[in-house]
Amino acid sequence: MTGDEQAIRKLVADWMAGVRDGDAGKVLDLIDDDAVFLTAGSKPFGKDAFRAHSAEQRNARIEPVNEIEEIEIAGNWAYMRSSLRVTVTPSSGEPMRQSGHALTILRRGADGRWRVFRDANLLVVEA
Amino acid sequence: MTGDEQAIRKLVADWMAGVRDGDAGKVLDLIDDDAVFLTAGSKPFGKDAFRAHSAEQRNARIEPVNEIEEIEIAGNWAYMRSSLRVTVTPSSGEPMRQSGHALTILRRGADGRWRVFRDANLLVVEA
Repeated sequence: MTGDEQAIRKLVADWMAGVRDGDAGKVLDLIDDDAVFLTAGSKPFGKDAFRAHSAEQRNARIEPVNEIEEIEIAGNWAYMRSSLRVTVTPSSGEPMRQSGHALTILRRGADGRWRVFRDANLLVVEA
Repeated sequence: MTGDEQAIRKLVADWMAGVRDGDAGKVLDLIDDDAVFLTAGSKPFGKDAFRAHSAEQRNARIEPVNEIEEIEIAGNWAYMRSSLRVTVTPSSGEPMRQSGHALTILRRGADGRWRVFRDANLLVVEA
């Protein structure tokens, strides 16, 4: 495994830990300022909307499980395919479970750090 | 615009023409043998399942409209973000319209040709 792949795997582990711990700042630090997130049924959104959404969810308990299926690196770019399952339990209410896949583009910044640049999230609520 | 970007834009134009003309062979020729397609609510599938799905739809009229939002090339790899709207009219039945975005990974083969390698399709049926 190359150092770049190790760095990207660490990014994913840090992201999951940030989500689990409700540490929005830790997650936001892993997102490129020019990131674009794509989801089914919504317009594409950027880092500011991601930050606002994280703030809305700060009282929920979020438990993500992520499995990296592949990482391919080309210079300062990489893509990653992963399988995800996320359980969100609001402060008052029943847990909701979503699962599916994601296709993510990562970019290495001028500081040498990898960050999420594009993310297509195909998660759907489990029946 | 580089020759690679022109080649990828031509691939998309050929894909759209192939879909519109019901020419499944033309579309399949643009897909890498190891391609993986990701959609919401289904398991990932490959080129054989794509071929089977195209055969099922051969009596439908399919009208796709695609707008390329960005293309980024890194060596033999590229990603593309696009906006899509597809109207499917079965041989007997009402038209169904889907719209949304797609994030696509393209790979340049040993023969120098670009083909679709990964595709996350976020289309949803319009209300």
